[in-house]
Amino acid sequence: MLAIHERGQASYQATLDSLSHRGTEDLARVEPDVREILETVRERGDEAVLDYSERFDRRRPEALVLDREAWLAEAGRVDPDVRKALTEAAERIRRYHEHQREPGFRYEEDGVELGQRVRPVAAAAVYAPGGKARYPSTVLMTAIPATVAGVKRIVLVTPNPSPEILAAAEVAGVTEVVDAGGAQAIAAVAYGTESIARVDKVVGPGNIYVACAKRLVFGAVDIDSIAGPSEILVVADEGADPEVVAADLLSQAEHDEAAYPLLITLSRSQAEAVDAALERQLESLPRKAIAKEAIAKNGYAFVTGDLTEAGRVATVLAAEHLSLSVEDPDSLLDQVGAAGAVFLGYHTPEAAGDYAAGPSHVLPTGGAVRFSSPLGVYDFVIRSSLIRYSPAAIADQADLLEGLARLEGLEAHARAVAIRRRS
Amino acid sequence: MLAIHERGQASYQATLDSLSHRGTEDLARVEPDVREILETVRERGDEAVLDYSERFDRRRPEALVLDREAWLAEAGRVDPDVRKALTEAAERIRRYHEHQREPGFRYEEDGVELGQRVRPVAAAAVYAPGGKARYPSTVLMTAIPATVAGVKRIVLVTPNPSPEILAAAEVAGVTEVVDAGGAQAIAAVAYGTESIARVDKVVGPGNIYVACAKRLVFGAVDIDSIAGPSEILVVADEGADPEVVAADLLSQAEHDEAAYPLLITLSRSQAEAVDAALERQLESLPRKAIAKEAIAKNGYAFVTGDLTEAGRVATVLAAEHLSLSVEDPDSLLDQVGAAGAVFLGYHTPEAAGDYAAGPSHVLPTGGAVRFSSPLGVYDFVIRSSLIRYSPAAIADQADLLEGLARLEGLEAHARAVAIRRRS
Repeated sequence: MLAIHERGQASYQATLDSLSHRGTEDLARVEPDVREILETVRERGDEAVLDYSERFDRRRPEALVLDREAWLAEAGRVDPDVRKALTEAAERIRRYHEHQREPGFRYEEDGVELGQRVRPVAAAAVYAPGGKARYPSTVLMTAIPATVAGVKRIVLVTPNPSPEILAAAEVAGVTEVVDAGGAQAIAAVAYGTESIARVDKVVGPGNIYVACAKRLVFGAVDIDSIAGPSEILVVADEGADPEVVAADLLSQAEHDEAAYPLLITLSRSQAEAVDAALERQLESLPRKAIAKEAIAKNGYAFVTGDLTEAGRVATVLAAEHLSLSVEDPDSLLDQVGAAGAVFLGYHTPEAAGDYAAGPSHVLPTGGAVRFSSPLGVYDFVIRSSLIRYSPAAIADQADLLEGLARLEGLEAHARAVAIRRRS
Repeated sequence: MLAIHERGQASYQATLDSLSHRGTEDLARVEPDVREILETVRERGDEAVLDYSERFDRRRPEALVLDREAWLAEAGRVDPDVRKALTEAAERIRRYHEHQREPGFRYEEDGVELGQRVRPVAAAAVYAPGGKARYPSTVLMTAIPATVAGVKRIVLVTPNPSPEILAAAEVAGVTEVVDAGGAQAIAAVAYGTESIARVDKVVGPGNIYVACAKRLVFGAVDIDSIAGPSEILVVADEGADPEVVAADLLSQAEHDEAAYPLLITLSRSQAEAVDAALERQLESLPRKAIAKEAIAKNGYAFVTGDLTEAGRVATVLAAEHLSLSVEDPDSLLDQVGAAGAVFLGYHTPEAAGDYAAGPSHVLPTGGAVRFSSPLGVYDFVIRSSLIRYSPAAIADQADLLEGLARLEGLEAHARAVAIRRRS
């Protein structure tokens, strides 16, 4: 059952305030263990990674880095229909990300050439979890933005290299596969070991150990945002079919007991109709227990009365996935602040974005869309500022530059300009 | 004295390896204290910030947020020449950053509309340190990229709001000034207090407490990279004047005893000539003691023999500031990997980039240019993916989407697509 709050009730704003601070998972309880794992891998390298894999995952692979021929052969065992679907999805994802390429720029002003060079990072690692969250789609959604950015070395890190995962890796352009998981695998790619050269960027979702390890290696490498529970916020006007809205809410509720299925309607009757549809559809769902718990814990409906208030509430909630199931989604979009991915109109299921529409399904959660973006090509590039003065230009600006340097008490800065006045 | 290493010597590659792992400051020693400060501010708000300011900075301002009229009046007290210089620098910085604006995109493919919306974050804080590193130029270099991004609320956070700092804030378009510093000030803007609304992004350099606080609030807000000691790497061919090269090295060495003045030359004689010039120029420098210690601790010269090897060494060193003091800097640039800001040719002092050339002087240090970029407009925007299916498009892709969802065992995902087949 969704908890329904109507505008005007005291609980309405209080619930919104509380949800706007939902934040991310508290990693403190695993931090001491993770710190120890990171330190041990940094000191002892491959052996430490293998020891931890044996202890935590009850397996000790012969080599951490898979032989390329061998993993491609394993990828070849996948069902041809699965390969075809992965390939079609990959093409759509690739085409979308081509639009995110940045050419850089260069121009001249008063004898000064200025510019920005954009290059791919040298190496990136994409993490793919084992266990219940083993999704080949996530390999596509993390590795393809890196290949489009032009990254030469793309390392898939996974504790469970199944044929489906490896086929996705092949299709996405992964160049190297590391057979390890958990904090020890994050340490291996962040610091480097005898068999694994360090990378520059580590992305992809994982369990609490992986999330904590990513936070702690941040600074030695860059990371993407820390993945929290899935969120979907559906704004449904009177034209939205309650059965369709309920299906969208369930598609995220089934991910995780901690997922957030959130709803905004204009009327109480519409919220109740969606809730009734949820109850009906839940019954036949394979992952019924998970979805039911998510709805009970974090299922909320806000009855806003009008679209202006709906836009305000959606802005406060700052959701990972935002479905605008309304007649004029574009004008509502203009009123909404941050959101990870926006699904416009009645005919766009959030699930399309999870698989094949094009944008990456790796999105900020926990309100982090206020300050971060979907995983994209921009996550895999580094920019350099370019500056070139002509002799006349440096003479022209010398008074300005020396004045500012001396204002700050930095005489050597001023002299590095002054010495060029003569040239 | 620079430590000179020649290609072929065993020490040459060993020193390079060691410098390529120079990393960032170890924040662990202050972490327990900083955690306590963050928790206390989160619980007790303004009072806690004021208490810590009294304890650490020996002052307790009447209000944490300065009255706008009052700080503008204070900014008005600055020398007219200083204001003119700050304004001219600000205009150049603004013009450069206009080139970094991203328009977003929108296109249609097979009945699916796809796009990316780019918007500014709602609020950003820029930190300006007190003490010896009190630089108005840093206020320009952090706040202007935010104003160009279109950020509506820009909060300057500083423990020492001098007329120069406030004039820079006014010129840069700062909207709010918080009179506090240290970890308590970072906590205040990241979590919010009674008088300060939380922001979405916190940027700018600070001491070890500020750096540690930024790391710990990362996740509640976004941050820029953690500032370490300044670095300059000059690649000097035989055409470079040793006196000019030495002046550039000193302009970063004077910042901090821990700064890195690094040099690449093609010949040993050129390295020795620069070293001799350094000794001479040091004598008359006001900040001689600081610069001398930086050179003694972290001053290295690599004699590479040729430009190809120079490009390789520069790539390994991945420096914050890279001066290509060579005859053909563009062709050398093509061979160099990551660098924060690149100063091309003999006539471009690094100091020009610190003040007025245009690009932000807030750059990644400690090798972090391998995976991060100069502070820019892109740091103050958030992107949202846009997806809109037509009824025909979702029917067309239904087999693909449902197939992938069922491959991953996510039936509710498949049903959210299937329910739209009929439409």
